[in-house]
Amino acid sequence: MKAFTLAAAAATLLSLAAPASAQFAKAEDAIKYRQSALFVMGQHFGRIGAMASGRAPFDAKVAADNADVVASMAKLPWAAFGAGTDKGGNTKANPEIWTEQAKFKDAADKLVAESGKLAAAAKTGNLDAVKTAFTATAASCKACHDAYRAK
Amino acid sequence: MKAFTLAAAAATLLSLAAPASAQFAKAEDAIKYRQSALFVMGQHFGRIGAMASGRAPFDAKVAADNADVVASMAKLPWAAFGAGTDKGGNTKANPEIWTEQAKFKDAADKLVAESGKLAAAAKTGNLDAVKTAFTATAASCKACHDAYRAK
Repeated sequence: MKAFTLAAAAATLLSLAAPASAQFAKAEDAIKYRQSALFVMGQHFGRIGAMASGRAPFDAKVAADNADVVASMAKLPWAAFGAGTDKGGNTKANPEIWTEQAKFKDAADKLVAESGKLAAAAKTGNLDAVKTAFTATAASCKACHDAYRAK
Repeated sequence: MKAFTLAAAAATLLSLAAPASAQFAKAEDAIKYRQSALFVMGQHFGRIGAMASGRAPFDAKVAADNADVVASMAKLPWAAFGAGTDKGGNTKANPEIWTEQAKFKDAADKLVAESGKLAAAAKTGNLDAVKTAFTATAASCKACHDAYRAK
């Protein structure tokens, strides 16, 4: 009974969070969309990482601009993990995404929250704040990949 | 002399507009990035098109949300057309992009401007305004594709 309630709550949450899931013409489009959004995000995130790790000189404006793109892109992929998009195309998505929807949504929400904090930190122009927020955001990427992306 | 001045001006403009072009680790990444950004943009643009053409019911909030994503994504691809990214990966980019940089930049700027107007039109909640701005934005897509994307 409790499991059913949780599953129903999760389904409600997902339908609220992902109103656009039905808008992909086919599963391949949804898969390409979420991979594309994550790739774009990753490129911008990597530029902040280069500054956070000292591989590139810190430029507060560049960090803030990239963090804004990361925070915007972080919101996009999740609507493309709708029912029926577990197969088709070249996906590395684990089937657990569709059997653990509440946990998967928590992982997605964590990225959205941490990348929002990263964008806020970058606006301060303080490198230490950027480093802290970058590390937390990277941890949210890794946690979700470890659980839900095939090796 | 005039051609040289124009070319120099174009180079200056491009370097201002595309400070991130050197930030891609390899040409393949730049190509994948610009294709990814354009694909994400196209998915959201298509949802507005469905409403503009009457294939989907008009929902002002959905139109506005999608138009905001389109306007944000429209700014991203151009930094990834830097020198040396004409080959590598599965690109349909015409070589004229790199020999007509001022014209290509004009085409990109046109999309950014029109998609900005689309986002503003969508915020009004007026379907006719959305239709007009959608048509103008689509024309800017087509003009650039006709000139700079291989068939």
